[in-house]
Amino acid sequence: MRYVTYERQGGKAVGIVDSLNGLVIEPTSLDWPGDMITLIKRGSVKQNPFGNSLPLEEVKLLAPILNPSKNIICIGRNYREHISEFAKVSQTEDKPPEVPVFFTKAPTAIIGHGQAITFNPKISEKIDWEGELAVIIGRQGRDISEEVALDYIFGYTCLNDVTARDLQKSHNQWFKGKSFDTFAPLGPWIVTADEIGDPQNLRLVLRVNGVTKQEGHTKDMIFTIRQIIASLSSGFTLEPGDIIATGTPSGVGFARFPPEFLKNGDVVEVEIEKIGVLRNGVISLS
Amino acid sequence: MRYVTYERQGGKAVGIVDSLNGLVIEPTSLDWPGDMITLIKRGSVKQNPFGNSLPLEEVKLLAPILNPSKNIICIGRNYREHISEFAKVSQTEDKPPEVPVFFTKAPTAIIGHGQAITFNPKISEKIDWEGELAVIIGRQGRDISEEVALDYIFGYTCLNDVTARDLQKSHNQWFKGKSFDTFAPLGPWIVTADEIGDPQNLRLVLRVNGVTKQEGHTKDMIFTIRQIIASLSSGFTLEPGDIIATGTPSGVGFARFPPEFLKNGDVVEVEIEKIGVLRNGVISLS
Repeated sequence: MRYVTYERQGGKAVGIVDSLNGLVIEPTSLDWPGDMITLIKRGSVKQNPFGNSLPLEEVKLLAPILNPSKNIICIGRNYREHISEFAKVSQTEDKPPEVPVFFTKAPTAIIGHGQAITFNPKISEKIDWEGELAVIIGRQGRDISEEVALDYIFGYTCLNDVTARDLQKSHNQWFKGKSFDTFAPLGPWIVTADEIGDPQNLRLVLRVNGVTKQEGHTKDMIFTIRQIIASLSSGFTLEPGDIIATGTPSGVGFARFPPEFLKNGDVVEVEIEKIGVLRNGVISLS
Repeated sequence: MRYVTYERQGGKAVGIVDSLNGLVIEPTSLDWPGDMITLIKRGSVKQNPFGNSLPLEEVKLLAPILNPSKNIICIGRNYREHISEFAKVSQTEDKPPEVPVFFTKAPTAIIGHGQAITFNPKISEKIDWEGELAVIIGRQGRDISEEVALDYIFGYTCLNDVTARDLQKSHNQWFKGKSFDTFAPLGPWIVTADEIGDPQNLRLVLRVNGVTKQEGHTKDMIFTIRQIIASLSSGFTLEPGDIIATGTPSGVGFARFPPEFLKNGDVVEVEIEKIGVLRNGVISLS
């Protein structure tokens, strides 16, 4: 199943994208959940329910999850070539971390497919992209073993871990440079785990204005999703709707020669196999 | 006003602590909010409402805020002497940061006054304390100037930024070592800003088993609360009920000779002038 959150009569609703005909089904049953986290807690439906159908292109998508109960949890330095490119332009070691590097992005940074990444050039002009596979947790758990880790996943979506590179560095800890409003594009929808199969077998591409900048594959993660969930959940409670971003492959802007950053009018796309394309414009606020 | 969240008939309720007689007032008006964030959004009441009174010692307190809409935002390295003690035992510079160091603790780590800090010695035995003044945001804002920053504060409470020192270091970014379940004792209540006056004029003490370990004063913060809110809110939306922990003074356990860590049966207290005492026992899970 593919679940979307979309704007409806000034509020929000949860629908299903029918992958055969590209229609959004708006279930009419009275007990259909009004938000994605309630849906996740109840569990995915087995077949399309009755409902109205709307053409996907006429629906204004929102981020599939708008109010996770904790910040988005991100993994830094999880692809070998990205570690190398990062090391070349910063004072970090060119070797993989021994345990996952966890940091967070504020929920106030979340935007959906089609919404604009905005930045204030007086705060930072070094706005960079990071295409990532995001895991959506399906049920509460703690001290989850690698063996059963995938059972805790509801589905997957795309995330762009937009980063103000100068502030990531100057603030030392990464939270601030990665948590500006609009710096967490998420979507376009959640594809349930059963449709994805092996999450370590997905091609990931990021394009800026149609030009491919990142081209990675989730098989190249240093810590697999099983390992990430096991490490993260040790002594730590994961909840339905928690979002885990699994790291970015090489090809980010600040490691290029010369460095490249997002500017007013750019369009960034994160495309992940079996999921789809998350597309966001970029607007400079002055 | 002093507002508490407490356990009531299996659920939770918000009450007022009458500072004259130590009674918790449970307002009986039908539109009294059921949780602290709703109360914060409506604004503090001007006088005690009618209600039932319960002796404070018979009330089971919970953390004043249980479900903030984002992670607790913390400031690292914000007291001069703590930076020096930290530098002595780690590979960090003995000089103040140029901009605030922001990191976060997960809401799932929050516990209230009287609840136990628990840790699994197989995960870490280097469990340390950090007594801190916590700011509770009262209204939504972004790009808040230093001049008006204090107007955005609803009140203050005590926080213990409990930290697994070895994991803080090994995970590189601090989130994981500071976000284990129960590692964010918060409380005992929120004292509204009008009762605190100048938040940079408060004595802060942390005791373990009655022995003073930290003795600081909020006048010694490197970044004042005004500066913290201005820096944090730049391009970033603060919301009612957001919690900002303002850093810890010197005297943490791992910088002592020999190092000291929390162990099963310990009792930790954070006491802040004009607020009160946040007390938590410590339990080793094996």
